[in-house]
Amino acid sequence: MKIAQVAPLWESVPPVLYGGTERVVSFITEELVRQGHEVTLFASGDSTTKARLMPMCPEALRPSKVAINYDAPVTAMMEKVFGAAEQFDIIHSHLEFIPFPLARRSRTPLLTTLHTRLDLPELVPVFRKFADLPLVSISDAQREPLPWANWQSTIHPGLPKHLYTPHDNQGRYLVFLGRVAPEKGLDHAIEIAKQVDMPLRIGAKIDAQHAEYYHTVIEPLLDHPLVEFIGEVTDIEKDDLLGNAYAMLAPYDWPEPFGLALIESLACGTPIVAYRRGAVPEIIDHGITGFICETREEMIQSIRHVSLLDRTRCRQAFEARYSSERMGQDYLKVYEQILGVPSKTPAPVENLATGLAASGQA
Amino acid sequence: MKIAQVAPLWESVPPVLYGGTERVVSFITEELVRQGHEVTLFASGDSTTKARLMPMCPEALRPSKVAINYDAPVTAMMEKVFGAAEQFDIIHSHLEFIPFPLARRSRTPLLTTLHTRLDLPELVPVFRKFADLPLVSISDAQREPLPWANWQSTIHPGLPKHLYTPHDNQGRYLVFLGRVAPEKGLDHAIEIAKQVDMPLRIGAKIDAQHAEYYHTVIEPLLDHPLVEFIGEVTDIEKDDLLGNAYAMLAPYDWPEPFGLALIESLACGTPIVAYRRGAVPEIIDHGITGFICETREEMIQSIRHVSLLDRTRCRQAFEARYSSERMGQDYLKVYEQILGVPSKTPAPVENLATGLAASGQA
Repeated sequence: MKIAQVAPLWESVPPVLYGGTERVVSFITEELVRQGHEVTLFASGDSTTKARLMPMCPEALRPSKVAINYDAPVTAMMEKVFGAAEQFDIIHSHLEFIPFPLARRSRTPLLTTLHTRLDLPELVPVFRKFADLPLVSISDAQREPLPWANWQSTIHPGLPKHLYTPHDNQGRYLVFLGRVAPEKGLDHAIEIAKQVDMPLRIGAKIDAQHAEYYHTVIEPLLDHPLVEFIGEVTDIEKDDLLGNAYAMLAPYDWPEPFGLALIESLACGTPIVAYRRGAVPEIIDHGITGFICETREEMIQSIRHVSLLDRTRCRQAFEARYSSERMGQDYLKVYEQILGVPSKTPAPVENLATGLAASGQA
Repeated sequence: MKIAQVAPLWESVPPVLYGGTERVVSFITEELVRQGHEVTLFASGDSTTKARLMPMCPEALRPSKVAINYDAPVTAMMEKVFGAAEQFDIIHSHLEFIPFPLARRSRTPLLTTLHTRLDLPELVPVFRKFADLPLVSISDAQREPLPWANWQSTIHPGLPKHLYTPHDNQGRYLVFLGRVAPEKGLDHAIEIAKQVDMPLRIGAKIDAQHAEYYHTVIEPLLDHPLVEFIGEVTDIEKDDLLGNAYAMLAPYDWPEPFGLALIESLACGTPIVAYRRGAVPEIIDHGITGFICETREEMIQSIRHVSLLDRTRCRQAFEARYSSERMGQDYLKVYEQILGVPSKTPAPVENLATGLAASGQA
């Protein structure tokens, strides 16, 4: 199959350090190439892939020190993608709704994977306007605010099996991995570590948007013998950081659309203690690969019980459900689903059922 | 003629307070309606117009207190504009390059007025990619970084003749009007006022992006008996603030694409003292409606000479060159120019000359 993958330009594909969406795009792309498909990747020029790379800007834009008009390279990218649309059986975009108006005017079907939260009221009109276009959610929880959209499937992200290695020995510290942002609850994680008197190692990115939050809320909490702030980490560092931990703390306090860090932890064999938010209950098997908690007190109690969990079950859960091989196969099924039915017959939005029945209007 | 005007959604059309682009869109729209054309305005729902208003979101987005995904309503707007394209003879957009990919796929020509600086390197690829689409600059200076683009005309913005009133008596204070931003040089204006020992009244908007600059650079300079910080002002307040001033200080230190405040000052009869930057020399007649200066010393000298200028010449220059009537006529000429030649024959970018010769490819 001839597949275009269209990535955001904030990070390279894969990103050097943090960057959830671009990491998943990379895993999908490489897996589809491995399966023998002809994949073209539209991404920043410093990306690395076995697919055909179409460089949309010399370098990823987030690391840029100067303010950038992000819309300019993305608009040029839209023209390049849809100008070449005839070369592809399907265009798989990771740019939210940006390509939707062009998809309406293209004979090549567009599939969109949404990677972010969808509960913002200003998103409703644009998804309503394009309610016929096929979508994939990265968790069932993610799609709840837009239940009427043309969902084809939930496809949980996956990782290459050998990216992280199982660590069978229980470590002696807790780990937090993710962005420094109010919704990620790093302040909770620090409080909890202090209360259970265990060291906490923090692998976290601070972006410009949250620099003030870091300085005012997080930084004052770091000056404590139990707390070590490491910053952003590479995959190799992550394997050590996660694998040697006793448990991952995931006190996220927002509708987490997926949480790539959670499956990275499972891949290393490390159980997770998390609040019940967003996709968390889809990922963690309560009492087997971690604990899903309602309150901070429950989280503190649960940390004691982590020692009873079997770390090999975490790795097994990862291998069974969160490999990029499984993810690639799932996407291929959706591509075939979209291409297998007659396409391009516009239908009124009112007639559109969810899922399979509506894919013909894509 | 059936004309679509497409405005940004940050401010209502016209804006309640500050908002250069949306103000100009309002003046163009109302003038074209006055001339008898059938105008449709795509803008935020709190806009006020004699044209047919197509509300793209309930309220302007800048005043919103919460972070907004601005791309969502703009993407929905693109679909609404181009979905209705057949209803218009021409689509006149003020959204930079955002509609370009859709314009390529539409039979209705798109004219774009660029309202901002164009000297950012990341803009080059997108304007190159769409080098056939017709553009209007708001000054000759503005277009210098992209001389090869398909410029149809420079059309200086204009104001309704009766919006501001001529004030013949020379006032006793200096005035600064504009955004609080490093490139606008408010710190210079304050320094200069102190040096020439004249009061300075400041009508200025502080946006979130520049709040830190305001607190660290500007605020410490305000505690001085000569300096009065008024904040954002309405048109009625502006007529008083500008008209009763001795001179406007415009120590802008960036490639100012136009500077609406300058012609507002002229409309009130108030001369301007400015640095030679961007469009300034196109607007001020040196020694007649103000002084164009190279250095701060020269600016200080020039302020003394303002008393020799005839304020009626400022108002005359405004009436002759900066009325919305003249602006509307200029735009109509460009619309006719675009519609009068065969359109929609794509041509390789290499063959495109500037201006008129290329408008056939629009």
